[in-house]
Amino acid sequence: MKLVHNMDVNRVDFKEINEYGFVKIASNSKNVIDEINEYSKYVNSNFENFVVVGIGGSSLGPKAVHTALNNQYYNEISGNTKIYFLENIDPDTFEELFEVINIEKTLFNVITKSGGTSETMAKFMILKARLGNLAKTNIVCTTDRENGNLIKIAKEEGYKTFFIPADVGGRFSELTPVGLLPAAISGIDIEKLILGAKSCLDDNLEEAKEYALIMKEAIEKGKNTLVFMPYSDKLSLLGDWFVQLWAESLGKKVDNEGNVINYGQLPHKSVGAIDQHSQVQLFAEGPNDKIFTFLEVKNFKNQVKIPKIYDEVRGISFLGGHTLNELISAEKFATDYALKKENRDTLTIEINEINEEVIGKLIMFFELATVFLGELVNIDPFNQPGVEEGKNATYALFGKEGYEYKLEELKDQCGDKLWNGK
Amino acid sequence: MKLVHNMDVNRVDFKEINEYGFVKIASNSKNVIDEINEYSKYVNSNFENFVVVGIGGSSLGPKAVHTALNNQYYNEISGNTKIYFLENIDPDTFEELFEVINIEKTLFNVITKSGGTSETMAKFMILKARLGNLAKTNIVCTTDRENGNLIKIAKEEGYKTFFIPADVGGRFSELTPVGLLPAAISGIDIEKLILGAKSCLDDNLEEAKEYALIMKEAIEKGKNTLVFMPYSDKLSLLGDWFVQLWAESLGKKVDNEGNVINYGQLPHKSVGAIDQHSQVQLFAEGPNDKIFTFLEVKNFKNQVKIPKIYDEVRGISFLGGHTLNELISAEKFATDYALKKENRDTLTIEINEINEEVIGKLIMFFELATVFLGELVNIDPFNQPGVEEGKNATYALFGKEGYEYKLEELKDQCGDKLWNGK
Repeated sequence: MKLVHNMDVNRVDFKEINEYGFVKIASNSKNVIDEINEYSKYVNSNFENFVVVGIGGSSLGPKAVHTALNNQYYNEISGNTKIYFLENIDPDTFEELFEVINIEKTLFNVITKSGGTSETMAKFMILKARLGNLAKTNIVCTTDRENGNLIKIAKEEGYKTFFIPADVGGRFSELTPVGLLPAAISGIDIEKLILGAKSCLDDNLEEAKEYALIMKEAIEKGKNTLVFMPYSDKLSLLGDWFVQLWAESLGKKVDNEGNVINYGQLPHKSVGAIDQHSQVQLFAEGPNDKIFTFLEVKNFKNQVKIPKIYDEVRGISFLGGHTLNELISAEKFATDYALKKENRDTLTIEINEINEEVIGKLIMFFELATVFLGELVNIDPFNQPGVEEGKNATYALFGKEGYEYKLEELKDQCGDKLWNGK
Repeated sequence: MKLVHNMDVNRVDFKEINEYGFVKIASNSKNVIDEINEYSKYVNSNFENFVVVGIGGSSLGPKAVHTALNNQYYNEISGNTKIYFLENIDPDTFEELFEVINIEKTLFNVITKSGGTSETMAKFMILKARLGNLAKTNIVCTTDRENGNLIKIAKEEGYKTFFIPADVGGRFSELTPVGLLPAAISGIDIEKLILGAKSCLDDNLEEAKEYALIMKEAIEKGKNTLVFMPYSDKLSLLGDWFVQLWAESLGKKVDNEGNVINYGQLPHKSVGAIDQHSQVQLFAEGPNDKIFTFLEVKNFKNQVKIPKIYDEVRGISFLGGHTLNELISAEKFATDYALKKENRDTLTIEINEINEEVIGKLIMFFELATVFLGELVNIDPFNQPGVEEGKNATYALFGKEGYEYKLEELKDQCGDKLWNGK
């Protein structure tokens, strides 16, 4: 990969990165890779379906890697164990899954680092009841080795379990069993994913620092939105994964000294060429409060020729003889050009092709850039205090022990508008 | 539907809406509905697959309605004609479609109002060549009745064609054959979609004005982002449809008098409860530059009970005995509460349930709100001058006749960084 831009960057010194848990996994994953590959063979031989049961960092990464590296119609054509994601708590999409799978032939991978995520644990409870005696064989857990309710239950009930290292937080956990297990089951070479992450440490560390420095300055200039715009369908969900990483790590009320800074940059996904027909009008002409990160794929697997027909039809004849590859590439160039002409800031991450190594590399690249920016602006990229209030209010509404004080507050503030169970 | 908020709104008078093309279709679509329903029967009997070939307004609407009203695993379970979307010009996802369909048993619906959209016409040219003699039976066009290359070709080559009214622009065209044909083929009651749109004119006109007034004031207060956050998987792609509508209609450099205003608000989609674990940290603690539109579904089709197990496990026992319905509803309330506590502006669109009428109503509601805001701030919501520069640059790079001047400009500006065909 290559970071292409024409901005000036003042280099600074950063802390050693080897202390970070998500960095360590690039070199100490050999055993876990072997165990997962072995287990995947068993899954592929024994289950028709594999369902990822997670939310946020426990789902966005597996989805992103699956989309990037597998056929978009995977379940329709692969012949392998089918892959599904039970991510939300929408009752209707929840039940639709059970119309399409045979639960007896399905392995459910319950993923939560803390073992306490309400949505995931609620789904786990429903699955356990529906599976009955099959729970022990049809549930596999991915969680912390020691802490939380899921590991406690898994031990008591004898579920196969994979572990997320204690020093790797949810949104940095894609290259742990959180992401590696679903990937391996769909036939992705997870050793190469990890090799890609490692190669980022060797080859692209300076570019990750550069990316953080560029974004720091952009935010200072009022670019409150970072548009993440891959010109590739397959990198679309990598955008969703990036959104969590950037938003939750860097959107913070206070810095490390407790000063109120209300910091953060909205990561906003857009997909080229599609969103040229949706958002580029705003990007080019609206407020100049955005910075653009294009992801450009230099070599697609396929070359798709546009036939040389309609030579006499002015308006489309110029397309004939070219390829879709040229068209998407020219459109990326042209959009970039048009935005720069309106004084918008853009940069491009060029990748040679989409494969396991490149995806591993991109994941590590953005994780590094995130912690570098956290360091530059003196905030903690690993916590998420701003989601506690909503969680606590939910606990209070559901009558969880210890949250009576919050229920009082809610009654006080909301009066007759308080949630009443519907 | 009901708009719920606690903001003050100063009402003003708006222009008559009956002149708008997208409003007229709510009352004059009887014939087209009958024709489409009749044709859909023929398609369902004769084709295994139906592929929507469009981009932007010719694809976002059909996708949104399909997702909202059909099973998420439609192609895996329906037994009916399968529905696919050939939206982008990504060579790899393009070719993947041809691995999963039998082209001989597939009807391609080529949709472009102008008949000149490069991406769509390039795909059309490829399809025509691949279909050979079958093109005449396996292509159906949706385009303008008189203007553009597609109608010209369709007439010459004898393709069945549906028409988009001349006074309805692409992003306002979902309730024309653009959206009605794909919907009908998947078994959606399109008459009810239109009835829903009509009922919005009767029942929710004042709320659409209110929504526009709220957003005008929000933008004046620096809320440059509108977070569109349905608590429902099925409304997720309605968010993508809304993004185009709001971004492209209202993101404008100049007002109707030509004053440079660089107006616009970034519509940003987020899905509850999922993105509580991704974006809410930033929403609650980052810059206070966003206004939130929640969409809340009061009644899902399914009730999903969380069993009363793990009574002894503090931390999850409170979930037992509740339902996923209650959980998603309480979480929406709690997130709203937590955001308000941080002085963020929120409003909620409550809908009773997701069905054809409600989706038709929501589409009309947001289209109306868009033109009302355009009127309030004196900009033209129906043009998109900001995408011309990128289009022209693409034409120049591809050697289209008449764009030699642009190629000169590009050479001048880009030097050896000019796009070179790769």
